[in-house]
Amino acid sequence: MDGSAAHGISFNTVDAPGLQASLFESSTGVDPHTGLGCGVHNIATELEDAITLPSQRKGDRDQFLEDIFRMIMEEVVQKGTDASGKVCDWLDPEDLKNTLDLELKSNGESSRSLLDHCRDIIRYSVKTGHPRFFNQLFAGLDCHALAGRMITEALNTSQATYETAPVFVLMEEVVLKKLRQLIGWQTGDGIFCPGGSISNMYAMNLARYHLFPESKQKGMKELPRLAVFTSSECHYSVMKGAAFLGIGTDSVFVVQADNRGKMIPEELEKRIQGAKSQGAVPFLVSATCGTTVLGSFDPISEIADLCKKHGTWLHVDAAWGGSALLSQHHRHLLNGIERADSVAWNPHKMLMAGLQCSALLLKDTTGLMKKCHSASASYLFQTDKFYDLSYDTGDKSIQCGRRVDCLKLWLMWKANGTEELEKRVNKAFTLTRFLIEEIKKRDGFRLLMEPEFINLCFWFIPPSLRGMPESADYWEKLRKVAPTIKERMVRKGSMMVGYQPNGDNVNFFRQIVINPELTEGDMTFFLDEIERLGVDL
Amino acid sequence: MDGSAAHGISFNTVDAPGLQASLFESSTGVDPHTGLGCGVHNIATELEDAITLPSQRKGDRDQFLEDIFRMIMEEVVQKGTDASGKVCDWLDPEDLKNTLDLELKSNGESSRSLLDHCRDIIRYSVKTGHPRFFNQLFAGLDCHALAGRMITEALNTSQATYETAPVFVLMEEVVLKKLRQLIGWQTGDGIFCPGGSISNMYAMNLARYHLFPESKQKGMKELPRLAVFTSSECHYSVMKGAAFLGIGTDSVFVVQADNRGKMIPEELEKRIQGAKSQGAVPFLVSATCGTTVLGSFDPISEIADLCKKHGTWLHVDAAWGGSALLSQHHRHLLNGIERADSVAWNPHKMLMAGLQCSALLLKDTTGLMKKCHSASASYLFQTDKFYDLSYDTGDKSIQCGRRVDCLKLWLMWKANGTEELEKRVNKAFTLTRFLIEEIKKRDGFRLLMEPEFINLCFWFIPPSLRGMPESADYWEKLRKVAPTIKERMVRKGSMMVGYQPNGDNVNFFRQIVINPELTEGDMTFFLDEIERLGVDL
Repeated sequence: MDGSAAHGISFNTVDAPGLQASLFESSTGVDPHTGLGCGVHNIATELEDAITLPSQRKGDRDQFLEDIFRMIMEEVVQKGTDASGKVCDWLDPEDLKNTLDLELKSNGESSRSLLDHCRDIIRYSVKTGHPRFFNQLFAGLDCHALAGRMITEALNTSQATYETAPVFVLMEEVVLKKLRQLIGWQTGDGIFCPGGSISNMYAMNLARYHLFPESKQKGMKELPRLAVFTSSECHYSVMKGAAFLGIGTDSVFVVQADNRGKMIPEELEKRIQGAKSQGAVPFLVSATCGTTVLGSFDPISEIADLCKKHGTWLHVDAAWGGSALLSQHHRHLLNGIERADSVAWNPHKMLMAGLQCSALLLKDTTGLMKKCHSASASYLFQTDKFYDLSYDTGDKSIQCGRRVDCLKLWLMWKANGTEELEKRVNKAFTLTRFLIEEIKKRDGFRLLMEPEFINLCFWFIPPSLRGMPESADYWEKLRKVAPTIKERMVRKGSMMVGYQPNGDNVNFFRQIVINPELTEGDMTFFLDEIERLGVDL
Repeated sequence: MDGSAAHGISFNTVDAPGLQASLFESSTGVDPHTGLGCGVHNIATELEDAITLPSQRKGDRDQFLEDIFRMIMEEVVQKGTDASGKVCDWLDPEDLKNTLDLELKSNGESSRSLLDHCRDIIRYSVKTGHPRFFNQLFAGLDCHALAGRMITEALNTSQATYETAPVFVLMEEVVLKKLRQLIGWQTGDGIFCPGGSISNMYAMNLARYHLFPESKQKGMKELPRLAVFTSSECHYSVMKGAAFLGIGTDSVFVVQADNRGKMIPEELEKRIQGAKSQGAVPFLVSATCGTTVLGSFDPISEIADLCKKHGTWLHVDAAWGGSALLSQHHRHLLNGIERADSVAWNPHKMLMAGLQCSALLLKDTTGLMKKCHSASASYLFQTDKFYDLSYDTGDKSIQCGRRVDCLKLWLMWKANGTEELEKRVNKAFTLTRFLIEEIKKRDGFRLLMEPEFINLCFWFIPPSLRGMPESADYWEKLRKVAPTIKERMVRKGSMMVGYQPNGDNVNFFRQIVINPELTEGDMTFFLDEIERLGVDL
């Protein structure tokens, strides 16, 4: 705490006889600094005098918001998406600390000073809408989604009840229904979650509750040992979820994937049999549509057969790959997804809705999610409200206050229609295909595999390694290439692309093209730039 | 899926001989609709021709964002905070459905049409920044926080790594440190979570892991029965967390609270002894600073003594009451909080940072949170990066992508300084005190109790019940008063305030004043309006 008591409201007319002003009593008696409650008129007058917070005067307020909006338009929306600018003005952590004035102080600062800070914040932040940002499973800047996000932030409400979010309760239902229809479900349930990891945890909890409703009250202690199945290429949130939900990571049976990163159904069957023979109860198979690194799709139909056979909940983590459902051409990648019990799908990734927009979708029509998660708080979910209580959907959530995540996606969808969104998805595939063909023409590039999705995984073979025998030394040298090129591109600010090892494969780049603004020129630049950055390696 | 394949990109120059274009193969062969990959030049040309998405043309984009910003300023920031407008233009769910055109269609809509939708969305949404919105534990509109939220949305990145969020990784640490200092901790750890419920769940998981590190791998099955302790006035997320984390709600030992809603330490001790005698291991006491309904503060020092005695983790859910730490006058309410192991504190409530801004703060300096939650994903947390890896803080989280929640609070703090924030907190207390004194002067109002915080709980006794004997019939009639008045105020749009039953107390209003713009005139209006709405009851 910086500052002294004098910083607060100083009412010096002490003494509050007989008021029982427990509001201002400390456990050891009346706080000598306050003396509030004495003389109502006095309080009122002093309130008006002392506490019209200057930063909130309407003219200042409106001007500041105008200035910030102007800055956002110029620095983020315009320059930040212009290929001629930097993806990031990079500073190492200690240098950035010394450059920014981050400290929070006793006194406030002027609007001018705040605007300077904001300009710095934007300058040194990564421009994820930049055409050379290929680093994450999100990218680009959709103006309608951004508009939806700005309205969301201005309205600042919680999805918990119809009372506080009448429009958004209805809108969430419409959006979830649309996503369910793309899966192939005419009915069902769903909710927006804070990210795909938590969506996957919801699925895990629902699967557990579905099989053992007593788990809600009794916990894991009273249940048989449970077993989760997922592939070696799954998202790490399955492990995080098993730990968080008290199931334990040892109960995650990792199923071998084939050399294209797809779960092998025969191996799943073996693992299920193995778990059963250990006395564990298989309660959940978490398949993946669009793995994080390779972009692989597990064979859902065959996995669904096994789930049916063994009475196991089928969850499909389609956080990344779900958006391919929008494409008539590519939705076959998710064949069988309609047989899942639950699906996680993040429109903030390929559809560019903006972080976070993560839907958990359920086939269930029995109110399972509400039964599983409800706690019926009397102050939110009053039973004597004047409107139809079925619209108070908040108790389905493990959250209490819950952000509005539907508007950004809804507005983008309204603006584009399903058709334009489909074109975006198709374009991402097409640009990826274009890159593959280009890579094949160039000496220094080697595909890890032909992708089925838009995760383009490849090694850049620097000049010194080309044509060399692929010895241990070769791979050790190649391992260091991607990190070196990555450092160079980040320091230069020319682009950003992810790399990682995977299984036996040493560090390779994973290029992701999402942004529908991109052209084949951007793709060519990408390859040229890697060649430039690695020419001396 | 609406529309046919023709909606996608139609490349009619089929045949892709020898390309092995697995990208476009279905499991049964090459998709006859695509034929992509054939003729790179062709692809490129068609890309440019066919897929410059019209909604993203830069002029349209900028104009749309300008129009939306203008609408936000006029309808939300200006009119939405003006007492002469409605808090909400209320429609019942079915009527609202019929009024809004929410359906998502094949074709996109014009900017004009989208703007009309947005105007309707704003119109029928609750204005939480309105001076007569007293319904939730959040309210008001802080222009700096809103500016921070707009920048956050424009930059649209994830907190997971320094690489994608250099500024925000550093900023989050500064903000968390500031919050820890207010608790009284010079060191420690922390993270922003998606809401207080999930913060409380983090604490529960950390407490479990602290005592039983094997729980991460082994799950609950191998542990002794665990016991959580919390008061009957606690937030319902303790129950939700116990269910979600596989502990089970039966393992939550509810401790009696006194008639002011504060946990009774002697009862806690009895419950701990009782749990032990049943063979359960007390691993967590979740105390509350600022209960949801009554705004009560558990006696932390005495509870901390018991936690020390029994070797139990002390979590303090100060999601609501934490902001009183900013006030020299009122921070005594949280005396002893520095003895906690973890604290949940939501600056999106009393400090008006905007949903969601929820900090989980830890005293721990051993990296417990990272050990507890990490899964070391190779594609995010590469070990051969060129910068100091300690800045990749994302693996502390149970999330993967994680929203930036620090900027809005940071910018508001920079603008106001700690001193102005302290004044806001003090002002909320002062206005509450003013209301209490007004209530005491009026016939129709009856306090539930003298609050210690700013939850002002009271019954409105309508004219027909005044002076009547307090029989069962009296309480049954009184029970219906708050819902009736609530319905009337919502339909009228004049204000919003919450009500609920609590324990043996029938429905009463819970008034919360947060917005520092308010004056004693707004307080008087509040009481007058309740009298007007209930005059015939």
